[in-house]
Amino acid sequence: MTTPASGAGNPISIVSEAVCQQIVGRPEAFKAVENVFAAMARGDAYNFPVVREAIGHADALYGFKSGFDRAGMALGVKSGGYWPGNVQKDLTNHQSTVILFDPDTGQLKSLVGGNYLTAVRTAAASAVSIAHLARKDAKVLGMIGAGHQSTFQLRAALEQRDFEKVVAWNPHPEHLPRLAAVCEELRVPFEAVTQQELGAQADVIITITSAFEPLLLKEWIKPGTHIACMGTDTKGKQEVDPALLAAASVFTDEVAQSVLLGEAQHAVASGLIAESDITPIGEVINGTHVGRRDDQEITLFDGTGVGLQDLAVASAAAELADQKGLSQTIVL
Amino acid sequence: MTTPASGAGNPISIVSEAVCQQIVGRPEAFKAVENVFAAMARGDAYNFPVVREAIGHADALYGFKSGFDRAGMALGVKSGGYWPGNVQKDLTNHQSTVILFDPDTGQLKSLVGGNYLTAVRTAAASAVSIAHLARKDAKVLGMIGAGHQSTFQLRAALEQRDFEKVVAWNPHPEHLPRLAAVCEELRVPFEAVTQQELGAQADVIITITSAFEPLLLKEWIKPGTHIACMGTDTKGKQEVDPALLAAASVFTDEVAQSVLLGEAQHAVASGLIAESDITPIGEVINGTHVGRRDDQEITLFDGTGVGLQDLAVASAAAELADQKGLSQTIVL
Repeated sequence: MTTPASGAGNPISIVSEAVCQQIVGRPEAFKAVENVFAAMARGDAYNFPVVREAIGHADALYGFKSGFDRAGMALGVKSGGYWPGNVQKDLTNHQSTVILFDPDTGQLKSLVGGNYLTAVRTAAASAVSIAHLARKDAKVLGMIGAGHQSTFQLRAALEQRDFEKVVAWNPHPEHLPRLAAVCEELRVPFEAVTQQELGAQADVIITITSAFEPLLLKEWIKPGTHIACMGTDTKGKQEVDPALLAAASVFTDEVAQSVLLGEAQHAVASGLIAESDITPIGEVINGTHVGRRDDQEITLFDGTGVGLQDLAVASAAAELADQKGLSQTIVL
Repeated sequence: MTTPASGAGNPISIVSEAVCQQIVGRPEAFKAVENVFAAMARGDAYNFPVVREAIGHADALYGFKSGFDRAGMALGVKSGGYWPGNVQKDLTNHQSTVILFDPDTGQLKSLVGGNYLTAVRTAAASAVSIAHLARKDAKVLGMIGAGHQSTFQLRAALEQRDFEKVVAWNPHPEHLPRLAAVCEELRVPFEAVTQQELGAQADVIITITSAFEPLLLKEWIKPGTHIACMGTDTKGKQEVDPALLAAASVFTDEVAQSVLLGEAQHAVASGLIAESDITPIGEVINGTHVGRRDDQEITLFDGTGVGLQDLAVASAAAELADQKGLSQTIVL
């Protein structure tokens, strides 16, 4: 209360959605997310409490995910939410912006468009889980879900193993051509299958839906499969059979969130697994947990989505944009 | 998850600290804060949970205050915090930025410098309390506290009644010339006094310190005094005798926050008053509570500082800046 007000303007770099799409590729997002998961497991980075509110207007869910990564010196917040009526306005339903601050002074440093980055950071999380947990000889990738986010997941996953085929199922089969088109572009055979067939064929499965009930049962899954559950980010949502978590070694981005609102919420609530059964994937990245123990083990990654992922990719975007002269500068 | 990503840029208006200082005066801040207090009491506006974290770097306290005002259609967040080392860098210790979103789409709408606005919105809160709760014939204004924020409080308070004199006390008397200079500018007699003398003379008292112990005792205060306690915004902070709250009619911006971390925390914790004894000042503004009952009553306003105040003044700033062509526009 005894300090002078600084009237001097603070330069801020603005990184637009278009620039993010231009400069943040899958390798950059993968590295940023892998690093921050590792920092979280070392205790160098932590997420702040999530704010999430149904605002009582336009059926919107709005809020903030924030945190601080001491290792990467990333401090900030992703603000935004879900506006279901946007699709009629030709706008993305999910609207996000990442705001980065200087950890040394608290001054605003960068404003980064968050819509594209949210898609790539979510895809990077499942890709990181595949890189560290799937069998090296995985050949068939199974996709449950064919919405907007699914193509990001598919592209990132295909880079992690020598996949020879993609099998897919979606509650709305009319969206499957979206995945088929990516496979055609990347010259990977694609097949639409039933859920049971998908379980029987796939070595790696990604679930990326907004489901509120299990879409995959335990008895459909082969030994040795790796499953990345990426759709459950709210209390009540669910993509797979809780018995599958009991049968698997379960990993996650953040244990507290996994238990509260991730895929593990149901298995923990019903007593099938305990919070202590869930391992932060950062421990595998850091080498303090062995990860997959053998070729028969089922591994499951509960990707809940944490603010630090957003800050990590946004920091990468801001750094690259500044280097390449692609950020706008304004004075606040 | 099934909507197309919009690649189209979103235009955002940027309102700098310098522009805020130019266009948001005390009348604009008063009106914005009075309106949003009224909206809160009607249930048209509410604050989201506050995030406040000691980040473990640079001794910083960092966080967010956010909310939604359906009446004013203001949705957003003030992010920032307290960096005690900034003063050595010639920067304000408190660093704030307000980010406003379009409640209809969730798109980022405005980025507004928050340092100056935080000072004027805090001053506006005590001014609103004086306007609605102090005796009409109040003549002597007492100031406890002489830090940076105190001059904003003083200027706003002096506009609410025909004050004929200012008396002041500060734990660090060497800062009192800061208040004396404002009084000289405004041609109001100024006197540095003891705490007891201040209580004996003042009809209206503003406390604006970072104290952790009572600076004013109940027995020093005259009947009919109005006190605005503006410094206590954290658990453990305290500016006045809890017995003073028990003797007064207590008003606040937000009851939940007043009880949790405002001046009322101590009186409530010790059982001297109950949460139900505290009235939102918006009820007085709306006319659903009478406010001051007579000239003998002591009234006390616990100004805890809510996110909706920040959104209200930032919305006013953005609107005025857009009207006057003083905002910068960037595309995100």
